[in-house]
This record gives sequence, C-alpha cells and structure tokens, in this order.
Amino acid sequence: QDGDDGKEIYQSVCKNCHGPTGKGMASFPKLVGKGEEYLTQRLEAYRAGEKIGPNSALMMPLAEDLSDEDIASIVTYITTELE
Amino acid sequence: QDGDDGKEIYQSVCKNCHGPTGKGMASFPKLVGKGEEYLTQRLEAYRAGEKIGPNSALMMPLAEDLSDEDIASIVTYITTELE
Repeated sequence: QDGDDGKEIYQSVCKNCHGPTGKGMASFPKLVGKGEEYLTQRLEAYRAGEKIGPNSALMMPLAEDLSDEDIASIVTYITTELE
Repeated sequence: QDGDDGKEIYQSVCKNCHGPTGKGMASFPKLVGKGEEYLTQRLEAYRAGEKIGPNSALMMPLAEDLSDEDIASIVTYITTELE
C-alpha cells in the first residue's frame, strides 16, 4: 500500500488536530500506537456517519469523502511513518 | 436572526478547535472580536473551497454543507453569545 496520498492528507488535514507526529493535543486523541485495525475502523465509522465519540460531529464531515484507498493510505502513513 | 442552530453547530463542531468561548487554541485562531463581516466572509470562502489560510484543507470540508442560514446563525452566536 502506497502511503504518499496518506501523507498528503495527513499533513494537510489530520495534522491540524492530531499533531505532526500523531501524538494528539488537548481533546484530540493520539493516533500512534493504536494499530491499523483500530484506525481503519474509526475512519470507516466516521465516514458512515456513526457517532462514536465526543468529536464525531467534527470527524464525520472530514471522513465523509474518503475512499477506501484514502483510508488505507492514511492508516499506512500513520502506522509506518509516524510510529 | 435566530442563533439556536448556530449554537448547536458551534458547540458540536467549531468548539473542538476554537474553544468553548471562541478564544482559539494553538494554530486555531480566535473568533471573538473578529466581527460579523469577517467571520461570514471566511466561512463563505471556505465553503466555496478557497484556500485562504494554513487550515483551509481542514475548514473546507467542515464548511462545505453549511447553508447561508447556518453561516448567519453561527456568526450571530459567536458575535452575540461568545463576545
């Protein structure tokens, strides 16, 4: 799985809240160390519009237009480049 | 202008980054004191997909589905309830 798109998406969107190295900030959770399966499931749930946590209303519109490939690429970037 | 929808949107989405009283946090700018016209123009620009600052990629999908009424209501809430 190529992580280049994931890097671009992470750096332009996710980084703002989860930080340049995925360590989180304030109410925004840490992403590193969570594992591929967990991260994939969370993004898929947000994309599906499921309320799964206090930041759901923020995450749902951000995940809404992600493709399966985008999600895989973001997760690959987090679990291989940030960890 | 009724600010109830604006309050709901602010509290569920905007608050996560701009804070409960609109004072901002880290790279997320303060909203209070910016004025109705400025806030409206920013939200309209993000909704239109214009890159107008370093957090544009984050704000564009969040503003994308806002109606004119939503924007007016959010701005009213910020300028009357938070200031």
